[in-house]
Amino acid sequence: MSTDTPVPATPTPPKGAKVLVSADDLRGLVARVFQARGASAADAGRVADALVWANLRGIDSHGVSRVPRYLELFDKGESRADAVPTVTRPRAAIAIIDAHAAPGPVALALAADAAVEAARECGVGWASVRGTVHTGAIGYYTSRVAAAGMAAVGVVAGMPNMAYAGAKGAAVATSPLSVAVPAARHDLVLLDMATAVMALGRIAQLKAAGKELPPGVATTKDGEPTTDPALAAVPTPVGGAKGSGMSLVFELLASGLAANPIVPAYHGGGKEGRRHRQNAFLLAIDVAAFLPLDEFTSTVDETVDAIKALPPADESAAVLVPGERGRRSEAQRRTNGIPLGAKAWRELTEVAASLDIPVPGLVQV
Amino acid sequence: MSTDTPVPATPTPPKGAKVLVSADDLRGLVARVFQARGASAADAGRVADALVWANLRGIDSHGVSRVPRYLELFDKGESRADAVPTVTRPRAAIAIIDAHAAPGPVALALAADAAVEAARECGVGWASVRGTVHTGAIGYYTSRVAAAGMAAVGVVAGMPNMAYAGAKGAAVATSPLSVAVPAARHDLVLLDMATAVMALGRIAQLKAAGKELPPGVATTKDGEPTTDPALAAVPTPVGGAKGSGMSLVFELLASGLAANPIVPAYHGGGKEGRRHRQNAFLLAIDVAAFLPLDEFTSTVDETVDAIKALPPADESAAVLVPGERGRRSEAQRRTNGIPLGAKAWRELTEVAASLDIPVPGLVQV
Repeated sequence: MSTDTPVPATPTPPKGAKVLVSADDLRGLVARVFQARGASAADAGRVADALVWANLRGIDSHGVSRVPRYLELFDKGESRADAVPTVTRPRAAIAIIDAHAAPGPVALALAADAAVEAARECGVGWASVRGTVHTGAIGYYTSRVAAAGMAAVGVVAGMPNMAYAGAKGAAVATSPLSVAVPAARHDLVLLDMATAVMALGRIAQLKAAGKELPPGVATTKDGEPTTDPALAAVPTPVGGAKGSGMSLVFELLASGLAANPIVPAYHGGGKEGRRHRQNAFLLAIDVAAFLPLDEFTSTVDETVDAIKALPPADESAAVLVPGERGRRSEAQRRTNGIPLGAKAWRELTEVAASLDIPVPGLVQV
Repeated sequence: MSTDTPVPATPTPPKGAKVLVSADDLRGLVARVFQARGASAADAGRVADALVWANLRGIDSHGVSRVPRYLELFDKGESRADAVPTVTRPRAAIAIIDAHAAPGPVALALAADAAVEAARECGVGWASVRGTVHTGAIGYYTSRVAAAGMAAVGVVAGMPNMAYAGAKGAAVATSPLSVAVPAARHDLVLLDMATAVMALGRIAQLKAAGKELPPGVATTKDGEPTTDPALAAVPTPVGGAKGSGMSLVFELLASGLAANPIVPAYHGGGKEGRRHRQNAFLLAIDVAAFLPLDEFTSTVDETVDAIKALPPADESAAVLVPGERGRRSEAQRRTNGIPLGAKAWRELTEVAASLDIPVPGLVQV
């Protein structure tokens, strides 16, 4: 069911229950919200597509539940729905996108396209993004590059929210890394990982449910390891110095090259240093400049086949390649609808109501 | 003491003891060995410099102890000391170096220079290396790029020797990632990490000493987690699916783009698929194309300052940035000499004797 007709009597689901909304309806709703707040139709569509993609892929913490947070950033002037990012190409293989505080999906989709254009010309293309906000799931942008028959690497740097090996408290960001590699028979290989042991969203879920955390995923604010959901404050970097080291160099490459450093400003103590912002980079690699694309994608297929044919550690669980779980989620949710928690749905419908936007019907309550 | 005069009576150190050799002497010795085996003076010097650099930095598992292994590869025809790598530049920002089985340091130093040249022209430059052997410590090559005032990313793909999350046995390589970022007041930030929880060399040390392994670093050949040094066979990827996912995409980018896939051939079962070889890529980023280099390096300094000023988790241990431990080792070993285990020293002197190369004196036995 896909309709924009207002359904005035949309029942409120009971606490803890989930509603099912079609991806198209959800995309339409979110786009209208952003347009109502001043975004162009194209930009609003881009934000909606990026957020709904995250939901489709099962990354709900980066999906439409973020809409109220974007609106809050608009209200505080920390982001602007109508910002027009500027693109410069100081040399042939690089682009610098100054987001001027546009939402992440607007700036990073531009960056993906600029990186692809530069890579088409030069073999590889690098796009730096300066001063955006919430980028959502970074795999969306590397997938966009991969759709052009290229491989992609992407990194986002943001506000410190993760521990640094050997130190107490929030020190560096959970800076995600995504790598997308196109295949032929198989779906693209899509790595999309934070540099923390456990995703922030998952920790938040366990905390909200009062459930004990697995050991090693978080510390208290004083840097003591804890499994107590009430005390867990700071996520732990994956592999200790490896995860926090990656986060640090990602900050230097994403924020440093964009001339918008976050980590020193944040720890400098000023209010400005703690204002939410993100920087990023995307690297596009034009496979066809190296070897025929079909030869490369055949190699990717054969590599995926080899991995999937490995003896499983647990006979009941298939060996998965990066992106496979997300693709399964996407196939299932495209057909059956996207499950949203009662709180996320209520917040979305409240936002819509405040902007006189009709709320779509539900696939299932 | 630095001399090439033969010291016929070089005493053999007792088992377990270490000898101290000056870096210059060690470099001279290794260069002569490679020249005697057919390498040009320049190539022999490059291999020697790369291996001794690893020892200086404290990465002894990637240092001169590898010399006998190179010679074995020469003997088996799997590497050639006199191979002349070819460089092509199919597009402005990319280079493809076909190593023709030259030792890693020869091929990767060429790649670093090609990446720098392309980056100077285009803003970023990517160099793929096809078909080399043992690359040593990859931080050597990213440091080489950084010395040109650029940031660098490097990855090596090799023979499967690490587990893949959810599967049994050796599935993917411990593919290292290195990122080098130049600073001004501080030394360059130099991340150099394998995608395994613990370095292979360290596991081998613990196994050789019969010491129990920490939990989570290795499995038996049947995929069971173990801390028993006698049963540990396969290192575990860092962060489970994160580490093995990184290794997989690194293989696709390093080997796939070089048209020399390793993982599918290895698991294909044929003898050729198990022949030792490595591929790599290096990315050079010309900072000055983005912003003035001194503005960037100041930001790196300030970021390092912010990290080092974090409250330490352990009052007795300073918070370190990537590369700092290696730099300390380098300063100390440049002054005091490089400690080599009795076995490594004996093997080197035997190799030298067999090639009629004089063995340098020791700083200390």
